[in-house]
Amino acid sequence: NIHNKGVVNMRILITAGGTLEKIDDVRNIKNSSTGRLGKIIADKIPGEHIVDYIHGQSSLLPKRSVNLYEIEGVQDLDDMVVSLLDKNKYDVVIFAMAVSDYMIQSVTSYEHLANNLENKDDILHRLMDYKEDLDRNQKIRSNHDHLAVLMKKAPKVIGRIKEKQPDTTLVGFKLLVDVETQDLVNEAQKLIHKNKADYVLANDLTSIKGDNHTGYLIDKTGIVSTKHTKQDIAQEI
Amino acid sequence: NIHNKGVVNMRILITAGGTLEKIDDVRNIKNSSTGRLGKIIADKIPGEHIVDYIHGQSSLLPKRSVNLYEIEGVQDLDDMVVSLLDKNKYDVVIFAMAVSDYMIQSVTSYEHLANNLENKDDILHRLMDYKEDLDRNQKIRSNHDHLAVLMKKAPKVIGRIKEKQPDTTLVGFKLLVDVETQDLVNEAQKLIHKNKADYVLANDLTSIKGDNHTGYLIDKTGIVSTKHTKQDIAQEI
Repeated sequence: NIHNKGVVNMRILITAGGTLEKIDDVRNIKNSSTGRLGKIIADKIPGEHIVDYIHGQSSLLPKRSVNLYEIEGVQDLDDMVVSLLDKNKYDVVIFAMAVSDYMIQSVTSYEHLANNLENKDDILHRLMDYKEDLDRNQKIRSNHDHLAVLMKKAPKVIGRIKEKQPDTTLVGFKLLVDVETQDLVNEAQKLIHKNKADYVLANDLTSIKGDNHTGYLIDKTGIVSTKHTKQDIAQEI
Repeated sequence: NIHNKGVVNMRILITAGGTLEKIDDVRNIKNSSTGRLGKIIADKIPGEHIVDYIHGQSSLLPKRSVNLYEIEGVQDLDDMVVSLLDKNKYDVVIFAMAVSDYMIQSVTSYEHLANNLENKDDILHRLMDYKEDLDRNQKIRSNHDHLAVLMKKAPKVIGRIKEKQPDTTLVGFKLLVDVETQDLVNEAQKLIHKNKADYVLANDLTSIKGDNHTGYLIDKTGIVSTKHTKQDIAQEI
């Protein structure tokens, strides 16, 4: 665990909670996450270390003293992570935030979409180049019978960490739903490989209920340990 | 206000908080609403009256004793409202919930959409008839570069109230963003007309900050009163 780094006063970056992509001023797409695991991890870190804590809106916050940085969407998170990595050198980064895989490209009506796609070829590229047409700065009026929310892949923020600070210890998280343990391990190792993470805490949503939470700490060799509560997972990290 | 009904022991139905439409097990589209106004209204109601309280997930709840009914999406809300209206006779219904105007019709990839629409006519009806293709029972894997979330108009749940109980007193709510007062009044009166509401509390998101909250109580003749805090709005109702 992070105590083994043997550094007396470490600086640690934690991301926790979920991101939120705005459709308009009152509607948004949210990744469900209470931020509880990130909070518990922060609270286990001895007081001599400095903790920078990036969190989503309405996340649970640590009791321990940390520097708080609130973000909204994936783009905010990306900007914040880059700015902190430029400013500080981190011994450990614990990336527990549930980050949206997609961000909003356009919110449009079926009528507008139909007008633009009627009898056309190369629809795939027309969709990929599609620009917003409804006014999303306020609340979209409900006078359309249908809405199409077009989403594109968001940047992989966790990939920034080792790009900018190759010597930090990076712990990533992978949440899947109702899969075999071997699939969890495979997916976790893909994440390790892709983002140069040192460890990935892999877990399955179906095993998470309040404080009960089965997590597998995985490195490139396989499962390092298995824990059954958020407290034990946090302690292990 | 509701005291004027002159009934000693009233039964009151309140809806508060926001609905949530699930894209999959971890992603959802939410109407931002804390449920604070509904909670304050409930807490102002004298103890001799019975309050049935339908609320969204993670809404603030009243301190007062109420019967709690938690719902998730618009369809849940509709089922719950119909079942309570079939079971109980309400003197007053206060419909403060932020209900999604749209529900999810389909979540699909651009590739699938393109395959189905390439060189076709009548795209509007093809979109309207489009059926789900991605597996949404779990977490949608992020191996698609894009996602299209297709949404259709949700049923107007508030319309059920007077349909089923024409003699109840119905208070509706209308939230708009950054509009003129006259537009608020017009929109509120449309709502009164359409859902046979007796009053509509109209407000503008830009006037809402914590407990500060400008609200206009409107009936078919115009503005009945103007209040500037959630407490005063609740008292007025």
